[in-house]
Amino acid sequence: MMKIMSKNKKIVYLDHAATTYLRPEVIKAMASFGSDNYGNPSSLYSKGREAKKALETARSKVAAILGCQPEEIIFEGSGTESDNHALIGTAYANRGRGNHLIATVIEHHAVLHACEFLETQGFEVTYLPVDKDGIVKLEELEKSIRQETILVSVVFANNEIGTVQPIREISQIIKKKNPKTYLHTDACQAAGFYELKVDELGVDLMTINGSKIYGPKGTGLLYVKKGTMIYPFIHGGGQEQGRRAGTENVAGIIGLATALELVQKEKAKENQRLIKLRDKLITGLLKIPKTVLNGHPTQRLPNNVNVTVLDIEGEAMLLHLDEAGICASTGSACSSGTLEPSHVIMALGHPYEMAHGSMRFSLGHVNTEEDIDYLLEVFPPIVEKLRAMSPVNLKNPKS
Amino acid sequence: MMKIMSKNKKIVYLDHAATTYLRPEVIKAMASFGSDNYGNPSSLYSKGREAKKALETARSKVAAILGCQPEEIIFEGSGTESDNHALIGTAYANRGRGNHLIATVIEHHAVLHACEFLETQGFEVTYLPVDKDGIVKLEELEKSIRQETILVSVVFANNEIGTVQPIREISQIIKKKNPKTYLHTDACQAAGFYELKVDELGVDLMTINGSKIYGPKGTGLLYVKKGTMIYPFIHGGGQEQGRRAGTENVAGIIGLATALELVQKEKAKENQRLIKLRDKLITGLLKIPKTVLNGHPTQRLPNNVNVTVLDIEGEAMLLHLDEAGICASTGSACSSGTLEPSHVIMALGHPYEMAHGSMRFSLGHVNTEEDIDYLLEVFPPIVEKLRAMSPVNLKNPKS
Repeated sequence: MMKIMSKNKKIVYLDHAATTYLRPEVIKAMASFGSDNYGNPSSLYSKGREAKKALETARSKVAAILGCQPEEIIFEGSGTESDNHALIGTAYANRGRGNHLIATVIEHHAVLHACEFLETQGFEVTYLPVDKDGIVKLEELEKSIRQETILVSVVFANNEIGTVQPIREISQIIKKKNPKTYLHTDACQAAGFYELKVDELGVDLMTINGSKIYGPKGTGLLYVKKGTMIYPFIHGGGQEQGRRAGTENVAGIIGLATALELVQKEKAKENQRLIKLRDKLITGLLKIPKTVLNGHPTQRLPNNVNVTVLDIEGEAMLLHLDEAGICASTGSACSSGTLEPSHVIMALGHPYEMAHGSMRFSLGHVNTEEDIDYLLEVFPPIVEKLRAMSPVNLKNPKS
Repeated sequence: MMKIMSKNKKIVYLDHAATTYLRPEVIKAMASFGSDNYGNPSSLYSKGREAKKALETARSKVAAILGCQPEEIIFEGSGTESDNHALIGTAYANRGRGNHLIATVIEHHAVLHACEFLETQGFEVTYLPVDKDGIVKLEELEKSIRQETILVSVVFANNEIGTVQPIREISQIIKKKNPKTYLHTDACQAAGFYELKVDELGVDLMTINGSKIYGPKGTGLLYVKKGTMIYPFIHGGGQEQGRRAGTENVAGIIGLATALELVQKEKAKENQRLIKLRDKLITGLLKIPKTVLNGHPTQRLPNNVNVTVLDIEGEAMLLHLDEAGICASTGSACSSGTLEPSHVIMALGHPYEMAHGSMRFSLGHVNTEEDIDYLLEVFPPIVEKLRAMSPVNLKNPKS
C-alpha cells in the first residue's frame, strides 16, 4: 500500500493518470546516463558512439513492443509534443491533398488545441461526437471522412473517463472510406495496459508518454508508419533522422523504453489485479446517494474510476480528500486550476453541474485493497458534510 | 584532469560545446524529483503543490540571474525547442505587422532551419553576413531592418568558432531603427560564461539550454520580455501560463536552474582559468604548419578553440584523436555525420577545403593543463601522418 508517513500524514496516491513516480528499475537504467555516459549521440568518438548505441537499443526495444521498425519511432519531449507533431506535422506536409482533419470531442487538449491552431492556419477540423459512455459514434466518423481528409485523431483511452475506443474498427472504417487518410491515436493513458502492435491496431501514428507509465517526465515518442508524409515539428540539427531536432535526452529515452517494457511485460497480471480494485471502488462509490459513473462500465481503463457526485464541487472534495492524505483529481491534471468544466464530461451529454462534481481516481502499481477500503471509509462522510453545506441543499432543505 | 581509465584507455574530453556531463550538485538537486516528489505541478493536493513550489523556486532562481520577472521565463524541452519557439512563435503572432525576419548566417541550425520553415509559410528572411572573424556586420544589420521586421535572431556566442557578438550594440542599432522589432539571442553556448542580465543585453527573447552547462539533456528555457507578442509553440494543457503545454519536467527544470546558478556563480574565476588553457592550446596548435585559427582571436568563448588544419579531413583527425582517447569535434555535434562542410566556417569567407579541415576543442570544468599538454603532444604527429597520406601531398610530393 502506498502510505507514506510524512509529518504523521498517510498518503494514498490515486492519481496515476496525472503522473506516475519513477519505478526503481527505471531510475537504475537511467542512472549512468548523465554522470558517466554523458556523450552526445551525434559525436563520432567512442563516448558519443556509446550514447548512440544505448539510444538505438532503446529504440529497438520500443519497436519490438509496437511491432514496427526502429526507424518508425521518433523520440520526443512529451506526449503533448508528440500529439502536436502528429497533427501539425501531417497537416502541413499534406496540404497538397486537402485541408481537413477529424478529432473526437474528447481528445486531450494537446490534440484539441493543436486542432484549434490549425484552424487559424486555414485547416478545417470536424469534431466527432461520442455516445453517453464516451465511445466515438462510428456512423458519424464514416460520414465525416472526405476525399481531402488528411488525418483522424482518436484517443485510445480517455484520460478522464477511461473509455477505450475500438481503434481497430475505427481504422477499418477510415481506410475503407479513404485509404489515404491517416489514423493517429494518443495512447498516453493506454500504453500501460493494452497491446500496442501498430499493425493490429491499424494506426499510422501513435503517441506514447513516459510520465504516465512510471517513466520520466519530459519524454514521449511518436510512431510514424513508413511512408507517412510528415514535417518535422521542431527544426534544427539532423537528430531522429531529421524529424525531431535537438540533442537527444539519452537518459530520458532509456527511462521511457525501460518503463514501457516493464508495464507491457506485467500488464496481463496487473490489469486483472487493478480491474478487481477498480470495480470494488466503483461499487463502493455508487452506494453514495446521487452518484453516477462517468465513462463506459466495462470498456474502460483497468485503473480508471470517474464518478460525478451531484450537488458538490469537485474541487471541494479534492481538498477534503487531500486533508485525509488522498491524492485524486477532478478532470485532467492539465486542466486543473481552471474554472472551466471538463470538456470530456460535457461531451457525454451531461449538464454543466455534472461536470463540476466529477472526481477521478486512477490506480497504480502501489495501490492495494487497503487503499480502496480507506477511500471508501473516508469519502462518504466528506460527501455528506459538503452536501450539507451545498447551496443546492440550503435552497431546498427537504431534498 | 579528466582521464578516466577504462579498458586501459585514458579519456580526455574536449567537446564540452557538444554536451556536458551532469555536475554532482545537479544530480543531487534532481534526485528526489521522480522517486519521492513525483507530483504533477498542476495537481491541487499537497504532492502536486510541492512539485509546483519546487518548479517556481527554480523559476525564481533563473529570473534572478537574468534580472527579469519569474513569469518571463518559459521552461522548454531543449535549446532547439526554445529557438523554434522564439522564431516561429513571434513570426505567427506578429503576422499582422509584417512578414520579415533577420538571422545571421552563423546561427545554429535550430534557428536557420526554423527560418527555412517560415520561408515555406510566406515569411521572408534576411541572412546577415559576418566578417572574417565571425562578427555580424553591423552596417548590414542596420540596412536590413525594415518597418515590417518582426524579429532579429543573433547567436550570443557561436557554437563552432566561439565568436561572441556585441549583443548590446546590436540591440541599440535595432531599437533605434525600429523599436517594434524584437531581438532574440541564442545563448546556449554563452550561458556558462557571460552576464545574462536581459536589460543590459537589451534582448526581448533569449534561449538557454541545460545540456551545455552541466545540466540535464532535454531541458531549455526561453526568456520572453513582458509584452512580447508570441504564440505557444506546443499547444495543449495550460502549463507555463498557457505558453508551453505538456506536464512540466520538474526534475529537469530543477537540474537546469541548479546548473545555471553554479556556472554563473563560478564564471569569473573559471573563465580566467579557461582562457589561460585556451590560449595555451591555440598557441600550441598554431605552431603546426599550415594551421589557421577560426573565429575572433579575443572576442571568443573562454572554452573554444577552432583551428583549420589544411590538407586534411576533420573526420580523419577526429578518429585518430579518438584512438588516443581525446574527444573533439569537427563542426557542431548536431551536424556531424553529414558530409556537408560547416556553414559557419564557410560564412567566414574561407574556401570549402578549410571548412573540411576544421577541428573544435571545447574545454570544461574537468580539463587541466595536463590535458592541453597531452593534446599538444599527441596531435602534431597525427597531423604529420595524415598529411603524408593526403591526396594533396601525394599529388605534389614536394609541397
